[in-house]
Amino acid sequence: MKARVHVTLKNGVLDPQGKAVHHALQGLGFDGVNDVRQGKFIELEIDGTDAAKAKAEVTEMCEKLLANTVIEDYTIELA
Amino acid sequence: MKARVHVTLKNGVLDPQGKAVHHALQGLGFDGVNDVRQGKFIELEIDGTDAAKAKAEVTEMCEKLLANTVIEDYTIELA
Repeated sequence: MKARVHVTLKNGVLDPQGKAVHHALQGLGFDGVNDVRQGKFIELEIDGTDAAKAKAEVTEMCEKLLANTVIEDYTIELA
Repeated sequence: MKARVHVTLKNGVLDPQGKAVHHALQGLGFDGVNDVRQGKFIELEIDGTDAAKAKAEVTEMCEKLLANTVIEDYTIELA
């Protein structure tokens, strides 16, 4: 079973990496960009076929390791 | 208009960051994980409402800056 996890900075948290990308895009002439936020995307290949169990497990992984929940949000999709 | 871009390593390209996450998860006792791949997730807020034009522009951004197309793939979703 595949799990796709998005880890993004919470609203209001400064995103210097996104700002740098935004600035670089402007330098390349892309003037139509108003904002850029950069996050992480993690694909996990996990054992088992029980979606509820997998979701609980991936949630625990996010809380313990994948996301810093003080400043980051995460979303989980199973496929 | 919002564009969501996923930048992932191509199949066959070594992913040391994913390997490190995999190893850390195993260290925390998550034994059911078979593979981890880590990529980037970029959210862009762009001017205009023409989806075709926006997609063409974001594709150009990916080719020029956001992805290293030698080793990375990218996908674009507009919302």
